[in-house]
Amino acid sequence: MSFDLNRYINERCELIDGRLKMAMPDENELPFSLHKSMRYSTFAGGKRLRPILLLAACDAVGGDLSAALPAACAMEMVHTYSLIHDDLPAMDNDDFRRGNPTNHKVFGDAVAILAGDALLTQAFILLSSPFYSSNVPSDRILDVIHEIAYAAGSRGMVGGQVVDMESEGCHDIDLPTVQYIHTHKTGALIKASVKSGAILGGGDERQIAALNRYGEAIGLAFQIADDILDVVGTTDQLGKDAGSDQARGKATYPSVLGLNESRRTAAEFIEIALESISELDEKADPLREIAKYILNRKS
Amino acid sequence: MSFDLNRYINERCELIDGRLKMAMPDENELPFSLHKSMRYSTFAGGKRLRPILLLAACDAVGGDLSAALPAACAMEMVHTYSLIHDDLPAMDNDDFRRGNPTNHKVFGDAVAILAGDALLTQAFILLSSPFYSSNVPSDRILDVIHEIAYAAGSRGMVGGQVVDMESEGCHDIDLPTVQYIHTHKTGALIKASVKSGAILGGGDERQIAALNRYGEAIGLAFQIADDILDVVGTTDQLGKDAGSDQARGKATYPSVLGLNESRRTAAEFIEIALESISELDEKADPLREIAKYILNRKS
Repeated sequence: MSFDLNRYINERCELIDGRLKMAMPDENELPFSLHKSMRYSTFAGGKRLRPILLLAACDAVGGDLSAALPAACAMEMVHTYSLIHDDLPAMDNDDFRRGNPTNHKVFGDAVAILAGDALLTQAFILLSSPFYSSNVPSDRILDVIHEIAYAAGSRGMVGGQVVDMESEGCHDIDLPTVQYIHTHKTGALIKASVKSGAILGGGDERQIAALNRYGEAIGLAFQIADDILDVVGTTDQLGKDAGSDQARGKATYPSVLGLNESRRTAAEFIEIALESISELDEKADPLREIAKYILNRKS
Repeated sequence: MSFDLNRYINERCELIDGRLKMAMPDENELPFSLHKSMRYSTFAGGKRLRPILLLAACDAVGGDLSAALPAACAMEMVHTYSLIHDDLPAMDNDDFRRGNPTNHKVFGDAVAILAGDALLTQAFILLSSPFYSSNVPSDRILDVIHEIAYAAGSRGMVGGQVVDMESEGCHDIDLPTVQYIHTHKTGALIKASVKSGAILGGGDERQIAALNRYGEAIGLAFQIADDILDVVGTTDQLGKDAGSDQARGKATYPSVLGLNESRRTAAEFIEIALESISELDEKADPLREIAKYILNRKS
């Protein structure tokens, strides 16, 4: 059997984008600028890694996709809000993302801040919608809301972002600090995506624990691969300035461990990820392929 | 029987503050700056109107306070996040709130943005905590998460904030625009507080609908009273610059209707609020006293 990862990802992206479009206020609804701004960043060419992982984890435990799709979209909203706020002049001050002007360059700082706020909130509107809980047990949905909120909060993504920012330009960043930043800033949301999919799919405790370990490992591998790409990729491939981490004195794996050791570490985490789900059957194959892809991606 | 509103409010504030302190990461937990910043604004002398209303609505339907207290704290977190973001230089650019330097003046813009983000997220962490759902039916909690998220999102508070901002300095603001701003920016969260208390207290449909109307009416009365205070209050009483709305060309009731007509409208909404809950027994008396207080407050 040959599994076509590209085709799989494209199909899932279509499914996710279709549901995302329904899950957000229309651009013609007041306030126009806010809703335009929310949609602008949500449909700006994101890879949909988190929702794809969430759906794949639901598949892996034999769950029904319709139980996972709203949470997958909510996860992408949380991710998108974090990018809008990260790019603000008060934070990373980035003018471009994925080749397009960043949200605040198009809509101004105030609307960008509020669009981020509204996207984060919209995730919880979607997760708690009466339609959703009429189809999926309320306890599972509450579990997932907790997973996502915890991963996004001060002990997760936002905490990682603060330490990342405060470490910028420091010359003596050590490995534990880089690990803290990566597990929190990127890792937490990726791990929560996989775990949420497993919960919503009705996985048993053992399956949920296995997928949680998988999510933790690929979250780290993903971020290390990202750091490596920032060093060796071209600006064209990345849609943002290559070498921008280095120029800013960002805390990264290559800056602490060097390129080769970083590559070895990423590969090791992918091994751990694959090992974690070795007891799951072929329904987990997409997760296996995604893990390998993360290691070898070029953009 | 004489009801001592001051004493009642002080007791409830103590209860709320005690629970809020437990519900947030400690200042000695990493990242220190973030957690300090979150606590700084949460404990900066807020009146706790929203959580007090939420608890009082729970009381009014004969509910158990412990079922409502986490949601009351979550509501205050959402309110606090909105103030931190409103005060940012990119938004209202305020240096003082309640007589103290605003969050970004103490912690910088970046940490202030992230502290707001983390407080909003913390509200949902608290609402979805396993401890909470072991004591209150999951369906009720999900209902309340939906109420709060909807009220805070792009069709509620954030939407109101965008229109408020975009109306600033316009000379021909009409009454419907002022009404939109007030029902969304302040009204939505106040209404959701009352309704959430009624849901968590186990109120029946009729009681929840009555309290929803009460919440809607006092939300509007509160904001009109606020607008009036900005014109007639002194800077000392307000803890911020009196007349600041006018100086900024903000859309307010007095600027559209004049002072006398605004006073009459506020009183009318208080009448509607009292009328809405006329069928509730004496357990709703605190709500009745709070309504009267809102009309007559001096700060």
